[in-house]
Amino acid sequence: MLGGGNPAKIDAVNELFLETYKVLGVDNDTGVPNSSAITSMANYSNPQGDAGFIDALVGFFNRHYDWNLTSENIALTNGSQNAFFYLFNLFGGAFVDENSQDENSESVDKSILLPLTPEYIGYSDVHVEGQHFTAVLPHIDEVTHDGEEGFFKYRVDFEALENLPALKEGRIGAICCSRPTNPTGNVLTDDEMAHLAEIAKRYDIPLIIDNAYGMPFPNIIYSDAHLNWDNNTILCFSLSKIGLPGMRTGIIVADAKVIEAVSAMNAVVNLAPTRFGAAIATPLVENDRIKQLSDNDIKPFYQKQSTLAVKLLKEALGDYPLVIHKPEGAIFLWLWFKDLPISTLDLYERLKEKGTLIVPSEYFFPGVDVSDYQHAHECIRMSIAADEQTLTDGIKAIGEVVRELYDEAKK
Amino acid sequence: MLGGGNPAKIDAVNELFLETYKVLGVDNDTGVPNSSAITSMANYSNPQGDAGFIDALVGFFNRHYDWNLTSENIALTNGSQNAFFYLFNLFGGAFVDENSQDENSESVDKSILLPLTPEYIGYSDVHVEGQHFTAVLPHIDEVTHDGEEGFFKYRVDFEALENLPALKEGRIGAICCSRPTNPTGNVLTDDEMAHLAEIAKRYDIPLIIDNAYGMPFPNIIYSDAHLNWDNNTILCFSLSKIGLPGMRTGIIVADAKVIEAVSAMNAVVNLAPTRFGAAIATPLVENDRIKQLSDNDIKPFYQKQSTLAVKLLKEALGDYPLVIHKPEGAIFLWLWFKDLPISTLDLYERLKEKGTLIVPSEYFFPGVDVSDYQHAHECIRMSIAADEQTLTDGIKAIGEVVRELYDEAKK
Repeated sequence: MLGGGNPAKIDAVNELFLETYKVLGVDNDTGVPNSSAITSMANYSNPQGDAGFIDALVGFFNRHYDWNLTSENIALTNGSQNAFFYLFNLFGGAFVDENSQDENSESVDKSILLPLTPEYIGYSDVHVEGQHFTAVLPHIDEVTHDGEEGFFKYRVDFEALENLPALKEGRIGAICCSRPTNPTGNVLTDDEMAHLAEIAKRYDIPLIIDNAYGMPFPNIIYSDAHLNWDNNTILCFSLSKIGLPGMRTGIIVADAKVIEAVSAMNAVVNLAPTRFGAAIATPLVENDRIKQLSDNDIKPFYQKQSTLAVKLLKEALGDYPLVIHKPEGAIFLWLWFKDLPISTLDLYERLKEKGTLIVPSEYFFPGVDVSDYQHAHECIRMSIAADEQTLTDGIKAIGEVVRELYDEAKK
Repeated sequence: MLGGGNPAKIDAVNELFLETYKVLGVDNDTGVPNSSAITSMANYSNPQGDAGFIDALVGFFNRHYDWNLTSENIALTNGSQNAFFYLFNLFGGAFVDENSQDENSESVDKSILLPLTPEYIGYSDVHVEGQHFTAVLPHIDEVTHDGEEGFFKYRVDFEALENLPALKEGRIGAICCSRPTNPTGNVLTDDEMAHLAEIAKRYDIPLIIDNAYGMPFPNIIYSDAHLNWDNNTILCFSLSKIGLPGMRTGIIVADAKVIEAVSAMNAVVNLAPTRFGAAIATPLVENDRIKQLSDNDIKPFYQKQSTLAVKLLKEALGDYPLVIHKPEGAIFLWLWFKDLPISTLDLYERLKEKGTLIVPSEYFFPGVDVSDYQHAHECIRMSIAADEQTLTDGIKAIGEVVRELYDEAKK
């Protein structure tokens, strides 16, 4: 079971959340049921989201970064997916030029620019009408990892990006990337991010950064990377990968105008965001334990899993044309089986028969016609969130099936 | 503060939820953090919603009604508003005739038929493109309430409804009503519901019933009414008015095909619905305490509030042309100030200056051009969920302002 995106079961994480849960049930205990838990359950928040949590987040971000946020810069959503549903429809789709003097002026179809695919599978279907993505395929660099060969890293093809007709002709509504990237575990470098921010500013479009696995929580990043924000940047965070996926709590940090639009969309789509994830996280954001938990428990856990998975994969397929995307973060490894005799969609079926689930690469190219792009059929995403035994068994199955495929092709 | 839709603070309700909350934190306590609370917080549900809660609901509904539901008939949403966002976009908007032989056949614009306005304000803006409502104005009958004069009741104008060109020409995608109705507290009679169900079946469109305040929970209905379901009926329920609005948990009971579509929309818009409301409600649905709570605590509470509010209003405005919609359910009274010298939008402003919030009637007519409909400017919605003192003070303010308006006009 290396297929899904559920975070790992980490006891230290669950213990802290459960401890917090119990406190929320008994604080303010004055004889009447008036604890934080009841306040959170029994009252709507406003459409922007739980005000106490937003205040805690303003304090947290301003404490750790020099962003000078106010509560007007933050809105909550029912998870990150919900945030991207809002943002991609806000900045992608048919736009009417409001400045046009011509009443019959046609609408402009704007798309979301994905500067580096593969990108998150969940972006694909969020537009309410059609799909609106313009995607750039990556440079693929051979790199080492912990001094070892057999790794590659995706880099943004800025030449292709800067020459996109859609960009030059005003048909891009926003630039978006996940960092670390789901599915690849790639972390765009600070230089790449600065370049993207510069392009976004030049074309007066926002840069949306999906930090679901990133800084400052859950901070599943092993490379040296920094996080910036300004009024042209939209940062998306989530409580899911820190261990609260059932709570569906997403956080958007953006210019006040964007927050106003998101709040209005919350009102229409959900009336108000769910509150209980906010209630659990508020004290942990206030006292920075969410950051300590990320740095001391969550990040080391996944780094250890990643190291183990790489070791097992090298043992199983070291003599075969497997290259692994340099593990820089997130809870996945991205494996490239060069010249695999079958597509990874077929590989998925064969592994499924053996009880091992992975996700084939072709789903991770929103906005790309992958029919002529061989690389998109040669990779898989495997989760490293499973326990050691499941991980070991899964990689064993992958090894057996893939070795057989390559061996047969050589005959 | 008689403006909002937050349910009342009822101690018996909050005590039961808090007790349940505490149990969820410690059940399955075997040394590792493995309680129901952690399971719910730390894992995604599937896009259809928390499977345990859906099973509990199947059992509950089949125990109390003869609906023969299976888990394929139920999906969860992030509250009722979220459900209506899905359903109104599923059944309203531009539709392409898939059976047409003509490739250039134009799309048909289908709308949601509201058989009796005033209707819920929150429906108005849910369509992703434009507004798609066809609304029927009500018959207004003078009725008595507890043997007293001074009341009216809205009834569906079936003649107008049956003669709607949109209905006869296939441009209605679904019929929808809230029962009890927010804002009026009207409860459509069983006869009216049967008639609507018959029309829906005749035109092969679903009948959507919004039970947010209705049966079987929170059951804030004082009139004699029954709830039916068949494959052509879509029932929407909510945990909000039973006391858990912060949890954002809505329930849709419908044909399996509709549930499949809703689950797919959940996946795109929210990835999966939030789980914790489901976790709290599951044991209470399993052991029917949610029904006992509704029948023994919630319904009597609002009925008492309603009786008090009517008494105070009669005392304050008995000699003035105030008529009250017969209080049949929900958490509001709907007041009609006949021939009020100003619009209730202006009345809202005057009351706001005195610190009393109500909602003027003109917002509750989705799909109606109210500019020529005087009645839509003469009513207000007032919440009866506030505590006794707030209710008393609010009605005092309404009495003073309205008396002065009528008195001045007579001079």
